[in-house]
Amino acid sequence: MDKLFVNVREKGPICIGLDTSVDYIPESINKKYDRVEDRLFEFNRGIIESTKEIAAAFKVQIAYYEAEGIQGLLAYKRTLDYIRKEKIPLIADVKRGDISKTAQMYAKAHFSGDFEADMITVNMYMGSDTLEPYEKYLKSGKGLFVLLKTSNPGSGDIQNLKTDSGKYVYQKMIDLLEKKGQNLMGSSGYSAIGAVVGCTHVEDGIAIRKRMKNTFFLIPGYGAQGGTASDVSKYLIHGNGGVVNSSRGILLAHKNDKWKDLEFDEAAREAAVEMRTKIMEELKKREED
Amino acid sequence: MDKLFVNVREKGPICIGLDTSVDYIPESINKKYDRVEDRLFEFNRGIIESTKEIAAAFKVQIAYYEAEGIQGLLAYKRTLDYIRKEKIPLIADVKRGDISKTAQMYAKAHFSGDFEADMITVNMYMGSDTLEPYEKYLKSGKGLFVLLKTSNPGSGDIQNLKTDSGKYVYQKMIDLLEKKGQNLMGSSGYSAIGAVVGCTHVEDGIAIRKRMKNTFFLIPGYGAQGGTASDVSKYLIHGNGGVVNSSRGILLAHKNDKWKDLEFDEAAREAAVEMRTKIMEELKKREED
Repeated sequence: MDKLFVNVREKGPICIGLDTSVDYIPESINKKYDRVEDRLFEFNRGIIESTKEIAAAFKVQIAYYEAEGIQGLLAYKRTLDYIRKEKIPLIADVKRGDISKTAQMYAKAHFSGDFEADMITVNMYMGSDTLEPYEKYLKSGKGLFVLLKTSNPGSGDIQNLKTDSGKYVYQKMIDLLEKKGQNLMGSSGYSAIGAVVGCTHVEDGIAIRKRMKNTFFLIPGYGAQGGTASDVSKYLIHGNGGVVNSSRGILLAHKNDKWKDLEFDEAAREAAVEMRTKIMEELKKREED
Repeated sequence: MDKLFVNVREKGPICIGLDTSVDYIPESINKKYDRVEDRLFEFNRGIIESTKEIAAAFKVQIAYYEAEGIQGLLAYKRTLDYIRKEKIPLIADVKRGDISKTAQMYAKAHFSGDFEADMITVNMYMGSDTLEPYEKYLKSGKGLFVLLKTSNPGSGDIQNLKTDSGKYVYQKMIDLLEKKGQNLMGSSGYSAIGAVVGCTHVEDGIAIRKRMKNTFFLIPGYGAQGGTASDVSKYLIHGNGGVVNSSRGILLAHKNDKWKDLEFDEAAREAAVEMRTKIMEELKKREED
C-alpha cells in the first residue's frame, strides 16, 4: 500500500482497469493474431505501454479472462507478469472470499505463483476470519481491498441494511476492518487492508472517508457508471489515500468520437490524461476552498 | 436443480467435494506422474470412479486449482469434463460475485466453455442485481447456490447482524432470494436458485429450512468442521431438498486409521458409504418420530 501511496503522490490517483473483453479489441490487433490469448495480451500490452506514465496502478479484472477459459488465463498471467516487470503496483480484481484452507488456497493463488499480484480485492460476507490466511502475505508487503460499499445500483440491498445499533451493515464492516488494519500499518499511514468504495453513492463515500482515515480506497464507478471527478475528489485526502479506477473509459477510448482517428493505445493515453487532468483540477479546487 | 433432486431421491444426499490439495495426493499417484496437472486429475479420477455410485453430485472447489496456476486450472478443466461426461450433477464452488458486465463474464466463464459446470456457488454481498446476468442460463437448466449462512466460526460477523426490522442480515437475503426464485421453479418444486447453508449453526439452519421450502440447499460443514448426521438430517425434507458436502473426510480417508490399509480411492468409497449410511439412519429416525 505504501508503494501505491508514493505512486499517487508522484503521478496522481489514476488506476487503469484492464477489464479486457474480446469484443473491445480492434481489428489492428485481431488481424495480426489468431489466438485469443495473444489478442488479449497484445491489446493489454498496448494499453500498458501507452498509459504507464500516467497510471498509479493497473487493476486487472480476472472475470474477463476466466470467461475465455485456459487461453484467457494464459493472457491474464502474461499481463500480470508484464505489469510486475514494469514495477507498477498491480491490483488483481478477483473478489475472492472463502474460509480456512480454501482461503489459504486463494491467498496462495493470487499472492504467489502464476497469478501473483501486489494487491487483490476480496469479499468478506463470510466473516472476518476469511481474511486471516492473507495476513502472512500482508506482513511482507502485499495488500487487500475489501468490498465495503460498491458502485452498483443494488449495492444497498445488503450493504445498506440498517442494523439494530443504527449503523448500516457496511459501517459494521468498517469496525471489523479497522481492528484488523491496526496491526498492519505502513509508513504511509495507511494499513495493508484497503477498502473498495464506489464513487456512485457519494454520501456513503464521504461518511466512510470520514471514519477511515488510515484506509486506502480503491474507487470504482468513475465514468461509464456515473461517478464524476468532483465526486471522487471527496474521497481523497489532500489528493491521496485512494486510486480511482477507469476501465471502459480507457479501453474503449478509440470508439469515442473525440479520439476515433487515433490508434487504440493512443486514444487510451488521451483518455487517461484527460481523466487525470479533470480529477487534479477538482482536487485543486477543493484545496483552495 | 431437478436433476439433483432426482439423484438425491435415488442415491441419497451425498455430495463429494473435490477440494484436492496437492499434499493430499498419495505416493501411488505421485510416482506415476510428474506434472501437477496430471497428479491432481488422476487423483480426482480415482475418487470419481470409486464414489460415483454413491454421489448425488460432485462439488469442485476451484481455489485448490487456482493455487496451482495454469497447471491447476488445466486439471480443473479436465476434472469438470470428466464429471460432465459421467452425467453426474456438477457444482463448481467458485463463490464469484460481481456486477453488470463483469458478472456476465463470470456467468460465461462457469456456465460455458472450458470451465462449464451445471451449478455454481455465488456471493451476493454486492446486491441482488449481481444475479441478473445468470438468469438466462438458469432458464436453460443451470443452477446457482447463493451463500446465505456459511459454516465458518466467523459467519455471524455479517450474516447474523440484526437489522432494525428484527431480522438477521441472512434473513433479509432470504427475502431477496425467494422473490428471485419464484420465476425459476422446476418440476421438483425447487427453484434454480439454491442456497448455501452450513450445518455447523444448526438453529439458523432449522429456521432457514422452515422459511425456504422451495430452495435446494448445498450444506457444507459436515465432518471435519463439526457437523453431524443428526444435524444435517434437520436440513432435509423427507430426505431431499439438499446435498451434504464432504471433502476432506472423503479425500483423506486413506489417512484415517480405519482405512489406512486401503488404496486412496477404496478408502474414499468406504468413507462415502459410511457417511451416507449415517445420514440415512438419522433420516429414518426422524421420519419415524
